[in-house]
Amino acid sequence: MHVTALSGGVGGARFLRGLTTHLARTSDLADTTLTVIGNTGDDITLFGLRVCPDLDTLLYTLGGGVHEGQGWGRADDTAAVQTELAALGVQPQWFGLGDRDLGTHIARSLWLGQGHTLSEVTARLADRWGLPDGGITLLPMTDTPVETHVVVDEGEGPRAVHFQEWWVRMRAAVPAQRFLVVGMERATAAPGVLDAIRKADVVLLPPSNPVVSVGIILGVPGVRDALRGTQAPVIGVSPLVGGRPLRGHADACLRAIGVETSSAAVAGLYADFLTGWLVDDSLDEVGEAPAGVHVRRRPLLMRDLDSAADLAGAALGLGLELRRR
Amino acid sequence: MHVTALSGGVGGARFLRGLTTHLARTSDLADTTLTVIGNTGDDITLFGLRVCPDLDTLLYTLGGGVHEGQGWGRADDTAAVQTELAALGVQPQWFGLGDRDLGTHIARSLWLGQGHTLSEVTARLADRWGLPDGGITLLPMTDTPVETHVVVDEGEGPRAVHFQEWWVRMRAAVPAQRFLVVGMERATAAPGVLDAIRKADVVLLPPSNPVVSVGIILGVPGVRDALRGTQAPVIGVSPLVGGRPLRGHADACLRAIGVETSSAAVAGLYADFLTGWLVDDSLDEVGEAPAGVHVRRRPLLMRDLDSAADLAGAALGLGLELRRR
Repeated sequence: MHVTALSGGVGGARFLRGLTTHLARTSDLADTTLTVIGNTGDDITLFGLRVCPDLDTLLYTLGGGVHEGQGWGRADDTAAVQTELAALGVQPQWFGLGDRDLGTHIARSLWLGQGHTLSEVTARLADRWGLPDGGITLLPMTDTPVETHVVVDEGEGPRAVHFQEWWVRMRAAVPAQRFLVVGMERATAAPGVLDAIRKADVVLLPPSNPVVSVGIILGVPGVRDALRGTQAPVIGVSPLVGGRPLRGHADACLRAIGVETSSAAVAGLYADFLTGWLVDDSLDEVGEAPAGVHVRRRPLLMRDLDSAADLAGAALGLGLELRRR
Repeated sequence: MHVTALSGGVGGARFLRGLTTHLARTSDLADTTLTVIGNTGDDITLFGLRVCPDLDTLLYTLGGGVHEGQGWGRADDTAAVQTELAALGVQPQWFGLGDRDLGTHIARSLWLGQGHTLSEVTARLADRWGLPDGGITLLPMTDTPVETHVVVDEGEGPRAVHFQEWWVRMRAAVPAQRFLVVGMERATAAPGVLDAIRKADVVLLPPSNPVVSVGIILGVPGVRDALRGTQAPVIGVSPLVGGRPLRGHADACLRAIGVETSSAAVAGLYADFLTGWLVDDSLDEVGEAPAGVHVRRRPLLMRDLDSAADLAGAALGLGLELRRR
C-alpha cells in the first residue's frame, strides 16, 4: 500500500513520525510506503545559503535528529557560526541556524550551485538520514524556487516581507494583509509529486497550517487537480485543538485570507477534494463540514510519539475504511 | 613612519605580531603604521565558500583570535559543521574548517557574492578584529581570484592540483614539478598595494615561504617593479633556521624551482630589490649573499611573542639604519 501526505514543518513532521511508528507497529501495514510532499514556500536564502525549513524539519524528525524541545533544528546543536556572523555584523540575526543545521544548508547550497535540482538535493539529504530504508520518499512540492511573502503594514504603508521575517521576527503579530507566493507563476510540480497523489491508496493532510503550508502546496500547478482526480480517499486532520492552533499562527493566517478559525472553515478550504476529516473532540466547534465529508471526532493533541501514532493510525484507518466503500 | 610587509600565513603573521608588539613597546615608534600585503594564492573554494588561508591567519593572529597551537584557525574552535558535512559525504575532508572559522568564510562568500571586492571584504573582516585601531591595514595582494596550483606526478602522468591539496592532503611529500598561478595573467595589484610599497619608509619581508607565499606576491604585476623602485630599504628575514625551514615545506618548494635550500639562495630570489637580510646564527650556512645586500646574523627562531618582537625589532632596526645612509 502507498500513502501520500502533503506536509508543512513541525506539526506535519510529528504526525508523520507518528504514522511511520504506527505502520511499524501494525504487522499488516509493515509494507506500506510513504511519499511526503513538503512545502517549500518557507524556503529562504540566509547568509548566501539556501534554507528549506519544512523539508529540514521533516528530514530531522523522520530521521531521528530533530531538537525535540523546539520541534525544528538539530538536537544538541551549537551556535558558533551564528555567533561569529553576529560579531561580523551579518544580518539577519532573528533566524537561528545551529552549526549542525548549517552543515545541511552548506551542502544543499553547494549541490544546488553545482546544478542539481532541489529534488536531487533532498534525496541526497534523505540518504544521510536513512529515510529510503524506511520506505519513505521526501519530495519538495516543486524544484522551482518559490518563496511565500507577506504583505504587512507597520504604519508606513503596505510592504511585502519574506514569510520567515513575518513568522519569526514579527511573530505574526503584525496583521498579514495577504500572502504572495513569489515564483509560483513559473513553478511546476517536482518529479513524482502528481503521480504520488494520483496513484496513492490513501492521501493524508497532516495538521499543518492550512494557509502557509498545505495551502501553498495546493497552489502548485496540477496538485489540486490531482487531489480532485485521485481514486484515493483524502483524509485531513484539523490543525485546531480546542478551536485554536496548538502552535504556529494559523489563526493569523486564516484571518488574512478572510476565513474564520474553525475546523469547519478549514475543511471548507479543502471541500473540492476532501473525503474524511478528523476534528478535535475537546470542543463542539465542528460546525458544518462540507457536504459529503466524513467527519470523525477524536483527541488531536499529539502529546508524545504514542499519541501521534494513535492519531495517524486513526487518520489512516478512516482512509482505509472510506477506500473500501 | 610607515612600514609595509609582504606576508604569507603562519610565520609571517607571527613575525608581524612581533612587529606590532615591538612598535607598541618602543615609545618613539608608537605612531608607526603598518600595511600588510597578504598572499592570496592559497585561496580556495571549499563547500562553495571562499577561503583565504593567509589573510585569515593574518587577521586572527594580529586580531588576537588565532589558535596558538596550530598557528592558524580560531582559538577554541569546534567542528560541528564539518562533522555534518562528513556525514553528508561532502568532499574534501582533508581541509579542516572550524565552526567559528566558517563564520568568516560564510560572511566573505556572502559579501563577495554581493559584488564587494576582496579588498572591501578584507577591510570589513579587519574591522571585526580591531585592526584599524592598531594602525594596521591588511590588503590582499590582488582582488582578482588567483590560485596556486602544483604540477605533480603520482605515477599516472603529470597533473595539476590545488596548492592546498598538495600542501595539506599530500603534505608536500609528492615532488612538485612546478607551480602555476591560475588567474595571475589577468590579475592587477589590489588598490593601495603598489603605493604602500613605493611610499613606505621600510619594507619588510617576514620569514614567509619564498616560493609559494612571498614568491606569489612578487608575481603580481607591478609589485616587483615597485620593490625595485621604492626609496625604502627592503629588509628580508630568512625562512631557514639551522639551514632548514622551521615549519611548512619551503625546501620542497625551493627544490621545485631548482633553488637550493640555503639562506643565500633565498636571498638570490630577492637580489634585484633586497637591501638587508637577516640570517640565522645557528649555522654558518650563510654562503654568498647577493652583492650590495647587508647581511646580519641573529637568532631567527620565534619561540614566543618576545622573541618574535625582538626579531621584528632587529629587522626594522636594520631598515632604519640603512635608510639613514
